[in-house]
Amino acid sequence: MSAILAVGSLAFDTIETPFGRVEKELGGSCTYFSLAASYFAEVRPVGVVGDDFGPEQEGVLRRRGVRLEGVERIAGKTFHWGGEYHGSMNEAKTNFTHLNVFEKFQPKVPAEFAASEFLFLGNIQPTLQVDVRRQARGASLVCGDTMNYWINNTRAELTEALKIMDVLLINDAEAKAIGNDANLPRAALKVLALGPKALVIKHGEYGATIFFREGAFGIGRHPFRAPALPLDAVRDPTGAGDSFAGGFVGYLASQGAVTRETLKRAMFYGGVMGSFAVEDFGTRRLQNLTREQIEERFQIFRELTHLG
Amino acid sequence: MSAILAVGSLAFDTIETPFGRVEKELGGSCTYFSLAASYFAEVRPVGVVGDDFGPEQEGVLRRRGVRLEGVERIAGKTFHWGGEYHGSMNEAKTNFTHLNVFEKFQPKVPAEFAASEFLFLGNIQPTLQVDVRRQARGASLVCGDTMNYWINNTRAELTEALKIMDVLLINDAEAKAIGNDANLPRAALKVLALGPKALVIKHGEYGATIFFREGAFGIGRHPFRAPALPLDAVRDPTGAGDSFAGGFVGYLASQGAVTRETLKRAMFYGGVMGSFAVEDFGTRRLQNLTREQIEERFQIFRELTHLG
Repeated sequence: MSAILAVGSLAFDTIETPFGRVEKELGGSCTYFSLAASYFAEVRPVGVVGDDFGPEQEGVLRRRGVRLEGVERIAGKTFHWGGEYHGSMNEAKTNFTHLNVFEKFQPKVPAEFAASEFLFLGNIQPTLQVDVRRQARGASLVCGDTMNYWINNTRAELTEALKIMDVLLINDAEAKAIGNDANLPRAALKVLALGPKALVIKHGEYGATIFFREGAFGIGRHPFRAPALPLDAVRDPTGAGDSFAGGFVGYLASQGAVTRETLKRAMFYGGVMGSFAVEDFGTRRLQNLTREQIEERFQIFRELTHLG
Repeated sequence: MSAILAVGSLAFDTIETPFGRVEKELGGSCTYFSLAASYFAEVRPVGVVGDDFGPEQEGVLRRRGVRLEGVERIAGKTFHWGGEYHGSMNEAKTNFTHLNVFEKFQPKVPAEFAASEFLFLGNIQPTLQVDVRRQARGASLVCGDTMNYWINNTRAELTEALKIMDVLLINDAEAKAIGNDANLPRAALKVLALGPKALVIKHGEYGATIFFREGAFGIGRHPFRAPALPLDAVRDPTGAGDSFAGGFVGYLASQGAVTRETLKRAMFYGGVMGSFAVEDFGTRRLQNLTREQIEERFQIFRELTHLG
């Protein structure tokens, strides 16, 4: 089993949905990623928190075996995001974004973690992503994320970051924006031409598709689609995409080998972890799962899509 | 093999997409449905056309073995729709709708077709759908379609029509409108409570999901998802949903028995026929397929979704 180095945000979220409201709930893309991936491999987040990130928050991660040596604590407050969801709950309305200590984040990979075999570059400034990749000297598979803000405002830096990613995980709108094409499969081909060997496009409630660059991983370019679970009670969609990434990278790390079959299963485990994440507020559902529950849901995903 | 009676529009379409433009191309929901279903079973459309629907148009249907005894010809012009697609091409902009002879359409099921085992109630006035079902005395499986216009303007009549449908095939927006719920699986449950044993919700480029009423067909209520093919060149999306319905009902008719397994495969064949339809303008791609090409694509759909 390989270890995963992951960079991104650890944060507090204040969230309102039709199902209720939580204040200063443990969140952040790297937190969701780490908890989801922790069921498959050892996870080593690299991030920054403030004085208000206490034993309670650390305990949630420690209990899942997450290594906290790369989480720097500095004076000030932790990143705090506030948002709400209504209607189809497909999009958050942001109420506030207090970057706080995250604003000047300079990721430092602890020397003992530089040999981690898997690297996940969460959604941070592309130049920082490149810097982390340089520090993570032992990484043999680099997965990454980005968002519209970087696509629109730091295109040159993002182009450099895409060159160092083996697998990019983004959503439909981000793929269309990077590829500058309204047709998703065409946009995917254009994104792949920028560097990544594989591109995972997350379609929210419709699942996700992985596209391959010709010859990547020696497995041909036929795409593969994994479903999302039709859920009649999505309590809080925050972190679904990061949890997908955690399940995806986590499963690959647990298998070591990156083959067409492990990538396909990783897509399913991504969907599985995303489906758990949205069943309760924040990271609550991701804190106390068992491998049996994960395998059970994997079977539900299989039955949802497989012919007899 | 069972025969399929299908009611709906036979029409001309004038269509513009980024790939070109066609004038008075053979179209109409019942035409797409009939051609797609014709690869699986004998199809018997019930519709109305005008003087301008000539041997050329009839020949297209006849060559696929479609029985035209139920297509009435009356003085006047055939239904003519004009529209265009841009950007993601997910939605048509309607330029004109000339109902012409279709405006006073009174479906008459030929006596010799009243025993058809499968019935497809295309997207027409719900009261007419109920009337056709009454005429089609031998139908043992009734599938149907509807659209936002009927949902918004003839709700009481639609409610009656839903009671006589075994399988309703609609898209996301229609399901949410009928169920009056922004959450798709919840909306699905509400639609099923109105009558249908099964509900197929078509997600466009993301595939389709079938939801079951508890106990329907004796197969439990777990949903099933079929993919759509990621296509980098959708030349003309017109008729994709009707072609899906044709593949779905056609396959069921070819098998006779309605079981969980045949319904799952029908979902795949629906996606297969929809994927062919959009590859060329109008019904062109549906006119000259072979069963081998259909089976080949079925395998591509399987590989797109199935773990090893």
